[in-house]
Amino acid sequence: MKIELLTIFPEMFSSFLDASIIGRARANRLIDVHATDIRPFSVSKHKNTDDYPFGGGAGMLMMPQPIADAMRAVAPEPFHGKRIYMSPRGKTLTQEMAQQLAKEENLVILCGHYEGVDQRVLDKYIDMEVSIGDYVLTGGETAAMVLIDCVSRLVPGVLGSSESAADESFSSAGLLEYPQYTRPRVFEDMEVPDVLLNGDHKKINQWRREQSLLITAKLRPDLLAAAPVTEKERAWLAEQMEQVQP
Amino acid sequence: MKIELLTIFPEMFSSFLDASIIGRARANRLIDVHATDIRPFSVSKHKNTDDYPFGGGAGMLMMPQPIADAMRAVAPEPFHGKRIYMSPRGKTLTQEMAQQLAKEENLVILCGHYEGVDQRVLDKYIDMEVSIGDYVLTGGETAAMVLIDCVSRLVPGVLGSSESAADESFSSAGLLEYPQYTRPRVFEDMEVPDVLLNGDHKKINQWRREQSLLITAKLRPDLLAAAPVTEKERAWLAEQMEQVQP
Repeated sequence: MKIELLTIFPEMFSSFLDASIIGRARANRLIDVHATDIRPFSVSKHKNTDDYPFGGGAGMLMMPQPIADAMRAVAPEPFHGKRIYMSPRGKTLTQEMAQQLAKEENLVILCGHYEGVDQRVLDKYIDMEVSIGDYVLTGGETAAMVLIDCVSRLVPGVLGSSESAADESFSSAGLLEYPQYTRPRVFEDMEVPDVLLNGDHKKINQWRREQSLLITAKLRPDLLAAAPVTEKERAWLAEQMEQVQP
Repeated sequence: MKIELLTIFPEMFSSFLDASIIGRARANRLIDVHATDIRPFSVSKHKNTDDYPFGGGAGMLMMPQPIADAMRAVAPEPFHGKRIYMSPRGKTLTQEMAQQLAKEENLVILCGHYEGVDQRVLDKYIDMEVSIGDYVLTGGETAAMVLIDCVSRLVPGVLGSSESAADESFSSAGLLEYPQYTRPRVFEDMEVPDVLLNGDHKKINQWRREQSLLITAKLRPDLLAAAPVTEKERAWLAEQMEQVQP
């Protein structure tokens, strides 16, 4: 998979791309991520990338020309993949969307700045707009890192055996994760729950499932509705939640 | 405002912290962000930070001891602020939450890795868990960058006049942003809408408001319910949406 970033702050990505799992995946040639500076593509005298909005208003907009030319340079036709603009107006990123994107050969990710990007360049050169959540960022760069992080770990071979992509919140079960414990057995007077120490895997699995159900019901009841939960489990959960009420 | 990051990949933050608006805010001493490596705090022989989960299962967990000691070092009592763990189990980040966090003197942000963190260290040393969205990341680092990006731009003085924090999607109006245009008037055969060129600001504001309403109704109807929209506007919108239907 090849990922091209279009940004006016390419230097912002360097340590992210070199470190951790992304760095290792790039070193192993499992993914190829490259940040392209939009600025050199500007045909204006001072290599400007922003200009005032028509109709007035606070702030500056990203000009269409440098973006269009950068896009043609990194994603020449015929282009196979998705050209994405990170935008609060976009479709909200989900694990399902990440799984779809992980199947693409090429991703181009445009990072906006200032008050936004000229609408015409979006209309013509962008296949989809993606939002990572309902909050405002200074630009698309940190959102792009999140998208790359989320998508690349789903590319086969990127995660090692100790980082398996299964069994985590939102990845498959649709429930939040149960509490986990490692050594020591007693840490600052707090003990590991007994059930995890007796080696009875049927009981351990049941306890973990129940904990997931309880935590999801308490923290994210909205997820519970869509999660694959049996009728019996729903009845058990309703009983438990009743006991918590006064 | 002082932000301390606890991470096993401190190098991942360096170019993010130096670049763009965050870099400038740090240079101007408006925010102080520092990444602390958890690993040197480990008392184990090989400075391990992870261990197997009690009860079995795939993957490794972050050990409680190095995190607890790192936390005591960067946030000694009495601590005034919030100790945050980036977690898919957390409360989902919103603009409102960011506004609350921007008022804190100190934030400590713990970035998890592997399959998670020992529950006991979370119970004892974490004030709140924050999720940036319903998707899985390789670790808490990119989520922490998003949180820092989102919160620091709300700290007074961080944004310049050309980057005003008002008037953007989710910041106040609760609607998605209208399309914006900058020069040239005609770009690759696409024209700027006439209304933006005639200098009639009453008409421009009305057009922008209508575009925001239409875009939000089309892309994020869930936001529309809670947005401050007049009865008259809702009636107009219903009419418009009807015309779009077959």
